[in-house]
Amino acid sequence: MKIRIISHCLPLLCALILGIGQSRGQSGYHLWLDYKPLRDELSVSYKTQLAALLFPTTDGTDSIAKQELLDAFNGLFGQVPEQVDAIRQQGTLVVGTPSSLPAMAQETVFSHVAQMGPEGYGIYTATIQGKPATAILANTSKGVLYGAYAFIRLLQRGADIAKVDITSRPKVNLRLLNHWDNLDRTVERGYAGFSLWDWHRLPGYRDPRYTDYARANASIGINGTVLNNVNANALVLTPAYLEKAAALADVFRPYGIKVYLSARFSAPMELGGLPNADPLDPNVKQWWKEKVAEIYRYIPDFGGFLVKANSEGQPGPQNHGRSHADGANLLADALKPHGGVVMWRAFVYEDTEPEDRAKQAYNEFVPLDGLFHDNVIVQVKNGPIDFQPREPFHPLFGAMPKSQLMMEFQITQEYLGFATHLVYLGTLFSETLRADTYCNGPNSSVARVIDGSLTGQPVTAIAGVANTGTAINWTGHPFAQANWYAFGRLAWDPDADAGDIADDWLRCTFGNDGPLVHALLPMMMQSREAAVNYMTPLGLHHLMGWDHHYGPGPWISGKPRADWTSVYYHKASKDGIGFDRTASGSDALSQYFPEVRALFENPQECPEEYLLWFHHLPWDFQMRSGETLWEALCRRYYDGVATVGRMQATWEGQKGRVNEAVFNEVRDLLAIQYQEAVRWRDACVLYFQQFSGMPIPDGLGHPEHPLEYYEKMEFHFVPGI
Amino acid sequence: MKIRIISHCLPLLCALILGIGQSRGQSGYHLWLDYKPLRDELSVSYKTQLAALLFPTTDGTDSIAKQELLDAFNGLFGQVPEQVDAIRQQGTLVVGTPSSLPAMAQETVFSHVAQMGPEGYGIYTATIQGKPATAILANTSKGVLYGAYAFIRLLQRGADIAKVDITSRPKVNLRLLNHWDNLDRTVERGYAGFSLWDWHRLPGYRDPRYTDYARANASIGINGTVLNNVNANALVLTPAYLEKAAALADVFRPYGIKVYLSARFSAPMELGGLPNADPLDPNVKQWWKEKVAEIYRYIPDFGGFLVKANSEGQPGPQNHGRSHADGANLLADALKPHGGVVMWRAFVYEDTEPEDRAKQAYNEFVPLDGLFHDNVIVQVKNGPIDFQPREPFHPLFGAMPKSQLMMEFQITQEYLGFATHLVYLGTLFSETLRADTYCNGPNSSVARVIDGSLTGQPVTAIAGVANTGTAINWTGHPFAQANWYAFGRLAWDPDADAGDIADDWLRCTFGNDGPLVHALLPMMMQSREAAVNYMTPLGLHHLMGWDHHYGPGPWISGKPRADWTSVYYHKASKDGIGFDRTASGSDALSQYFPEVRALFENPQECPEEYLLWFHHLPWDFQMRSGETLWEALCRRYYDGVATVGRMQATWEGQKGRVNEAVFNEVRDLLAIQYQEAVRWRDACVLYFQQFSGMPIPDGLGHPEHPLEYYEKMEFHFVPGI
Repeated sequence: MKIRIISHCLPLLCALILGIGQSRGQSGYHLWLDYKPLRDELSVSYKTQLAALLFPTTDGTDSIAKQELLDAFNGLFGQVPEQVDAIRQQGTLVVGTPSSLPAMAQETVFSHVAQMGPEGYGIYTATIQGKPATAILANTSKGVLYGAYAFIRLLQRGADIAKVDITSRPKVNLRLLNHWDNLDRTVERGYAGFSLWDWHRLPGYRDPRYTDYARANASIGINGTVLNNVNANALVLTPAYLEKAAALADVFRPYGIKVYLSARFSAPMELGGLPNADPLDPNVKQWWKEKVAEIYRYIPDFGGFLVKANSEGQPGPQNHGRSHADGANLLADALKPHGGVVMWRAFVYEDTEPEDRAKQAYNEFVPLDGLFHDNVIVQVKNGPIDFQPREPFHPLFGAMPKSQLMMEFQITQEYLGFATHLVYLGTLFSETLRADTYCNGPNSSVARVIDGSLTGQPVTAIAGVANTGTAINWTGHPFAQANWYAFGRLAWDPDADAGDIADDWLRCTFGNDGPLVHALLPMMMQSREAAVNYMTPLGLHHLMGWDHHYGPGPWISGKPRADWTSVYYHKASKDGIGFDRTASGSDALSQYFPEVRALFENPQECPEEYLLWFHHLPWDFQMRSGETLWEALCRRYYDGVATVGRMQATWEGQKGRVNEAVFNEVRDLLAIQYQEAVRWRDACVLYFQQFSGMPIPDGLGHPEHPLEYYEKMEFHFVPGI
Repeated sequence: MKIRIISHCLPLLCALILGIGQSRGQSGYHLWLDYKPLRDELSVSYKTQLAALLFPTTDGTDSIAKQELLDAFNGLFGQVPEQVDAIRQQGTLVVGTPSSLPAMAQETVFSHVAQMGPEGYGIYTATIQGKPATAILANTSKGVLYGAYAFIRLLQRGADIAKVDITSRPKVNLRLLNHWDNLDRTVERGYAGFSLWDWHRLPGYRDPRYTDYARANASIGINGTVLNNVNANALVLTPAYLEKAAALADVFRPYGIKVYLSARFSAPMELGGLPNADPLDPNVKQWWKEKVAEIYRYIPDFGGFLVKANSEGQPGPQNHGRSHADGANLLADALKPHGGVVMWRAFVYEDTEPEDRAKQAYNEFVPLDGLFHDNVIVQVKNGPIDFQPREPFHPLFGAMPKSQLMMEFQITQEYLGFATHLVYLGTLFSETLRADTYCNGPNSSVARVIDGSLTGQPVTAIAGVANTGTAINWTGHPFAQANWYAFGRLAWDPDADAGDIADDWLRCTFGNDGPLVHALLPMMMQSREAAVNYMTPLGLHHLMGWDHHYGPGPWISGKPRADWTSVYYHKASKDGIGFDRTASGSDALSQYFPEVRALFENPQECPEEYLLWFHHLPWDFQMRSGETLWEALCRRYYDGVATVGRMQATWEGQKGRVNEAVFNEVRDLLAIQYQEAVRWRDACVLYFQQFSGMPIPDGLGHPEHPLEYYEKMEFHFVPGI
């Protein structure tokens, strides 16, 4: 059925659509899939090139892909293509696989599919059966789905589709979100409302949001989701919850997304009544074997377990005198016959250890290298402390060549301003992925470690701790959507450019508006460094408020665990500031390969953004700029705040270019961010000044309140805990 | 600016709109303000009659009214009227007050405004300045706002506006929602997600939902909202929270909505460090005086306090040997100079009292009649226990002629199926409002008590415990929206017809679709009785699961408080079932006026729906139908379930008539409701059968599982607690 717009209806349509969308709270729900009408000249061009669609569907997945294309074309240029059985003289979009399009499978363009693997796709301008066509091809309907979304992205960017030649396959196999969602629907470190999973009404009631969640993830290539908090409740493994998880798995399956669960290691005791959870105990093995078989009866394509064990009080194999490998292998062996994996977290540190927290995961896991079974993958945070605004890459990357390692990033902004601060994390993710471990000489980037090219490992994975919740815009802050987006895009291709990804996101979200993108792209690209500067510049880390992690708390000390205080990390005193991780200190540097050590070990040459991560230096240490360390510290704190001020001005300039509700939201949030950045800056500068004894450099300004004012601030019911 | 639709664009528009709204989770956000396009013939007619708009605005409130009219006309019939300064020959809509339209204020139609009061409005077909026009008139811009919404409702119903003559003013002054929202954003007895109030980012970030919340409430005449739980946290009275509440008040103010807060009685101790909170202590009086003055500096039109005191562990005047009147007057005197009120809850009962729980509020409050100051209003639940599926009206209504009493209804379905069961509460609200107390002879309905006509009281009020939360559709169940709607409409006019209200809601929500309304209206109207039947028929009450109140729990016994068990209320034994509240029992009946006593005291004549509320009867008691009590009980349990089955069939018949996502949602929820209704029926019938020793009547069926199966069921993380 062909529907044509009469061109003078278009403004009316826009008015109607805006009018109907008048409810302000609706903004942001559509994420980067908002399919807003494109400029007329693009529309005219696309309508011609995409007038017909040859897309026989074979299953739920490619049916979804087709509907997505139709919706997108409808929204973007107001035309639904005519569905055809044969390629037309011109303007046909052909979509499928060799098996769905057998009559064409011998055409030249189909030769590309050999490179695509089970999830990849290609988009080509090609001659097929003697006629010019546009083709979206893949080996599987899942690849077709990813190809369809990639194609839509091209249109949203206003790309020229008259000459397209794209072949893309993911470099990492398992690309997951981790939801730190509790069964009571609170979300640990969640700032976007509450858990999306309405456990009480599952399995019978499938909230339509589950489908839109799946769409959003599929559009950026995410193919797995861990539903529950790593601080796990064993109840999630009981039938009552398995049937709920199975209902979610049913919704996600046609979008190519598998369900995983966080498993509590002590479940055999809590659920099975066993006297212990010893991984070497045959009864325990049997319990897991039966439990896993039960799970697969509910969810035949269950992905596997994510496990936090012997970390921050969680139960684990060490409670029974066994190793992480013993524990992981126990679960892995139970999952193996069913094709499942175990993602075993390496986030371990004990305050009973006198050792530098940054060294402990390495110390605990490297001796286990090679001991994990082949469906175990060790999940390692991007850095060795805990998702700080900046950390050097985790020394485990490259240090366990006989094991499979995966990346864990944090998308939710636990230490980066919650859902209040505009901080684009694509730059943070990319910085880690591109860092060179030198484990196999140069070009041994973290990305190469996790994509399996250095180890040849069969299981590769990457996880992001989700920032989604029940907020209508999913992520709380409109720009936090970009971090979910960037994670997905980098999971597919860890070598992708963070700026290109931000550019895509802006065009997909706000429309293909050149001036807007030119203004907002730099804003996004600067935002992470701004946050580093107003919170923890020059390699400082872990200075946040106690427990809730909200706002500054450089004074935090005297707690039961030293490694949960701030003073443990900055070690500020009259003689200087910073954590000596060189040979004269904790020697955490020794856990890196020689080239990396060489990069950081000399304070005169150490990149300044890591200076106080690796060195304890006197306040008058001379920086390369000639400034003292104290002056440089102050300058960065003030720069960070000033950058937020410039971000506010940049955003003001977009008034009228973006939806009014979103404009107001972001403007209001930037105003809060500015106030909070000032608070961070002033609290930290005043606190450290107690030790430096030096004045704030001229021209920067002076805090409005004394240090006590900040130390006394109390916050109640801060979200996320 | 005039925009005209080309008629053949309309299907395209519909397709586009549906296409753009493809994200399924979007359904329901717009509530009854969805402004879907009307049928062509109505559109043509309205476009002619409403071609021009004469509406000079004077403030934020009438500006909102104007925008609402423009959006509604745009959505409903695709035309934005031309704004004019003078009435046209025909087709002008005139909107305003005598002061905004001074040139017309002497016209005949304006004489109606004398009857409107400060909030009322009128809608008239009239001749103004010699020309035919439609007029929406009021005394104030607030009345104009209400009139605009009422007018839109007429259009949504497809009413004939060629001959309109409506004058309406609210019968109750203060029409409030009560949010049992905690400061951590959990909602006590809330099943629609979490609290709408994002305290952490207030006051700087004003979530656009706050505006849509205000719109929704204004459209049904709600003019006040209590932001926080009656189990109050004193922190809400501290500056940090007052500035957040003030931000909300700013958003709500132009919609005519005032903000109130639940005040914790012990706040002088917790916040002020005073040694006691004795209402007669001058220091305590001074504390409240200063605290209230502080509140009014933040919120100049603050409405006042809602207080739960000496109830279920909440602190109150009795902790200091004082009375409810002392406590209420303390706060009232502090609020008086600022124009605020105190709503003092009469929901009191102590298990240390051997007295029937149903009698205690009356016993405690009647002696205080006449002792409350004139800005105190006593807030009384609809019935004397606690929002059961059916309760007789609260004996306090009519029993305190020298005091101001107000109604508290529960919109959230704590005892009526959470956000899972389709239960229209308009019938429940109306049943109570129309009940005759006989306090001043016949026609002394509860409505007359609360609207002030019997007492002449200056302050009249009605409150509904809100069912709203962060769910995109606000209320969790699509049909739960109707209960928010019905509460507002009945608050404005307690004598309104519940069926007319449901009819309005259906047309406003699903479109002006006759066949749909004819099918769904009876479904809604039967739904409350169905729930009564499958949960607590024949006057039974309080049989729900322990603590979370989810599902059946007639066996609940042996708890620290007898009046929190089920056995306390049904008293089932071999000799019969029911609570004797006549003279041979607790004599709770004596708290009603003689005509009411006469209605209920004889079991042979007592309306069957209240039978076991007032009587303990043997299982073989003969009902008027000839059945035994046991048979009648079983029959109602089975009828209730059967009704849900018919509701499912009715809903199936609407496939294609309603938005697909909503269709699926409601269908899935009805399926769960059916299962839960079966569970209620079977658990209760089996449980009571232990005592009746009688078989389930032939033809009804038999429970699938034994009683133990139901007694053993465990539920985790049930929402709302």
